[in-house]
Amino acid sequence: MNIIPVILSGGAGTRLWPVSRQAYPKPFMQLSDGQSLAALTFGRALKVATDNTVLTVTSRDYYFLCKDIYQANPQADMRKQYFLLEPSGRNTAPAIALAALQTQQLYGNEAIMVVMPSDHLIKDEELFIDTVKTAAQQASQGFLTTFGIYPTAPETGYGYIKAGQSLTAEGVSEIAEFVEKPDLATAKKYLASGEYSWNSGMFCFQVGALLQAFEDTAPDVLAAAKNCFDAVDSNQQQIEFNADLFTQLPDISIDYAIMEKAKKRAVVDSRFDWNDIGSWNAMAGLLDSDESGNRIEGKAVTVDARNNYIRAGDRLVAVVGVDDLMVVDTTDAVLIAHKNKSQGVKDVVQFLKAKAHDAAIYHTTVHRPWGSYTILEDEDDCKVKRLVVKPGQVLSLQKHYKRSEHWTVVTGTAKVRVGDDEFMLNENESVHIPVETLHRLENTTDTDIALIEVQCGSYFGEDDIVRYEDIYGRVKDQKAQ
Amino acid sequence: MNIIPVILSGGAGTRLWPVSRQAYPKPFMQLSDGQSLAALTFGRALKVATDNTVLTVTSRDYYFLCKDIYQANPQADMRKQYFLLEPSGRNTAPAIALAALQTQQLYGNEAIMVVMPSDHLIKDEELFIDTVKTAAQQASQGFLTTFGIYPTAPETGYGYIKAGQSLTAEGVSEIAEFVEKPDLATAKKYLASGEYSWNSGMFCFQVGALLQAFEDTAPDVLAAAKNCFDAVDSNQQQIEFNADLFTQLPDISIDYAIMEKAKKRAVVDSRFDWNDIGSWNAMAGLLDSDESGNRIEGKAVTVDARNNYIRAGDRLVAVVGVDDLMVVDTTDAVLIAHKNKSQGVKDVVQFLKAKAHDAAIYHTTVHRPWGSYTILEDEDDCKVKRLVVKPGQVLSLQKHYKRSEHWTVVTGTAKVRVGDDEFMLNENESVHIPVETLHRLENTTDTDIALIEVQCGSYFGEDDIVRYEDIYGRVKDQKAQ
Repeated sequence: MNIIPVILSGGAGTRLWPVSRQAYPKPFMQLSDGQSLAALTFGRALKVATDNTVLTVTSRDYYFLCKDIYQANPQADMRKQYFLLEPSGRNTAPAIALAALQTQQLYGNEAIMVVMPSDHLIKDEELFIDTVKTAAQQASQGFLTTFGIYPTAPETGYGYIKAGQSLTAEGVSEIAEFVEKPDLATAKKYLASGEYSWNSGMFCFQVGALLQAFEDTAPDVLAAAKNCFDAVDSNQQQIEFNADLFTQLPDISIDYAIMEKAKKRAVVDSRFDWNDIGSWNAMAGLLDSDESGNRIEGKAVTVDARNNYIRAGDRLVAVVGVDDLMVVDTTDAVLIAHKNKSQGVKDVVQFLKAKAHDAAIYHTTVHRPWGSYTILEDEDDCKVKRLVVKPGQVLSLQKHYKRSEHWTVVTGTAKVRVGDDEFMLNENESVHIPVETLHRLENTTDTDIALIEVQCGSYFGEDDIVRYEDIYGRVKDQKAQ
Repeated sequence: MNIIPVILSGGAGTRLWPVSRQAYPKPFMQLSDGQSLAALTFGRALKVATDNTVLTVTSRDYYFLCKDIYQANPQADMRKQYFLLEPSGRNTAPAIALAALQTQQLYGNEAIMVVMPSDHLIKDEELFIDTVKTAAQQASQGFLTTFGIYPTAPETGYGYIKAGQSLTAEGVSEIAEFVEKPDLATAKKYLASGEYSWNSGMFCFQVGALLQAFEDTAPDVLAAAKNCFDAVDSNQQQIEFNADLFTQLPDISIDYAIMEKAKKRAVVDSRFDWNDIGSWNAMAGLLDSDESGNRIEGKAVTVDARNNYIRAGDRLVAVVGVDDLMVVDTTDAVLIAHKNKSQGVKDVVQFLKAKAHDAAIYHTTVHRPWGSYTILEDEDDCKVKRLVVKPGQVLSLQKHYKRSEHWTVVTGTAKVRVGDDEFMLNENESVHIPVETLHRLENTTDTDIALIEVQCGSYFGEDDIVRYEDIYGRVKDQKAQ
């Protein structure tokens, strides 16, 4: 049996602002152990995969973020990693349909897809893998199979699955019904009945059965997905779909499109610990508390304060005489919210988006295909950045009309082109790039380069970059640096 | 009558951390209108002064901060500003005794000193000046005169003055008694009785009467003050006292040393508005509130939040579902405190001092005689600063053993010496200063210079500065930059 994990890596996680942002969302956030949910999910996927192949459906904006994380896993064979890149978000049904078409092409109709969102935390991997095996057996018989998380509390934030008649394998039942997020009284009834489990958003499908189910209950989704798929070279490892064709995909979840209507459905009783890190409260739950009930990451001082969650970055957070707060500090924004009002964090992001405030979308540190840059200073008279360029990476050949740049290498050795000159710039050396001069920076070594870039001029917008060559294909769309 | 204002500019204002710090305390903090308490106090002092002469008693650490602020006042004749610089803090009695000796030397025993702490806010300047005139009249008759603030609430944070028999001038009484900070019940009784006023810490003295009172009730203070005074050249405008002699001054307040024991004392009924900005609540009180009762400076987003005070710096502060908090954000530290627990802010500073944490003392922006620097980045591989050098200022001639520096001028033109070369460095030009190379930077223009300094090396401590010449006298004690 061929098992192919399909990772869905979308979703902004706005309830985890200001750490999770549109340009660097929840799956990529650092947990207290330095890992990201995306890295942990990919690690789980590799353990489930038959031959190391994993399909990842994600936004084209997150491609390099994903790839960097995957490459860092020594178990990963990068030649077997496939990326389906969405030009815009269209919910789970289109994403899963496209993944099914790709899996069919690679491994045929008998292959088993295990659909896993990239922002779930599962610590008990052994039990998870066992449960996936059970689900895969059931799926191989043509059942559209879900993972029903054993409910430990009357949660109102999840949909529930009502189990029906037991099937032959232990812990597997037919699905009687999918139900929407309940109110608290209903959730308590569900919990007491023992018949309901949480809908985790993880699934297990045989490719042929899944495509047939699309044909039966959501033929419009399948037709539009085929249109997208037929227009690309699907033999590549990175498939970037056409933006116009992609917008013709209906924006619909796999639950609505198929699962609620299909006939042959199963739910697997899932007892592994599972956390979808839906809010700062969930993040807090991952930490041990001190004797006053405070849960703290980073530098913090507490005085007469109890049961607070504090996530400090580089700066010091001091709390005095307060209880039950969540304090989340980042380089350019700090959130102070009451524990019971974590939903309101979404409203902050909405407000910021409405005002087109960068803090809704970008961090001070911005990730790029070649590495990252951090803005140290952004004033009228200059902009100062720290650039980190990864081994083997090349910034685009570019020039600026409104600013000149001064580069000082502080770690490593860079290959630099300024005008027609090309030379190596060593640690503690600097170079001046005048206005309108073609320049490029390249890391031909096997260690990171760090440099400080001082921009002088009158305008420092990212749109004053004219690209001539770019190994990441950014000459046309002229995106930032 | 010669009236000489004496400004006492000490005090760390730890309850206003993290904005007020030891290296940049409360009098120098920016209020919401961009002014500082020190600037406002100096402005008031100039209006009270007979011939523009003001004496300022302050720490030598704050001398340049004071001088910059005073110079910015177009009414100030800098040739008439006298600074008595304390090598360490010894409370108000020694400070006032030294000011009395200096005033006596300048204007004789008949001169009237008006003692005003530099961290009080008084908006109603006209009434203040009238009240000072009344006090000066009373003082000229040999009375040690205080300003008794008309109490508007049963404050427990102030000492109280009980008025005795009325004196001839309207609103002036003998002092029956000084009383310590009362508990709330006692404070309410004081308020109801109509006989008590708040002890403001402002005084009006005739120099001769004051020195006689020292002689009578605190001869040790006077003797030690005379020792200090006799050891300096008191004809200079800046008098820096000898550190060893200074430590022999008793650490005692003017209230304990003289006012509580003296015989001929008066209190002037003071009806001008008065705020000693003793806590963040007092700062909040200076702002208008929005419709939810929130008082906000800077960039903030509030969701479902009421009656909070938010002082945001450059960063965004978002509060969700919280009431009655004080949130004060600075570049390197953020405070979140309940309104009723503002005293606990002191405990944070105590804790940080015990841990020798820089955030107790320094800001990311550090003020120096020649201007200021802001640390933009401080990592293992480099340190990046923005330096601002004021017109006419010169950094010391110096070198470093463990780092080289790259300077890029972003505003203005600098005169630079590197090794034996001296040249002008213009905007958008940079220069490299290798390890162990003598260098100096000078601003010979009449506008600020801004430059970005990138330090490369293995160690960036402020103690790796070897000074050879320094116009601010820092060659011996080798203080920072």
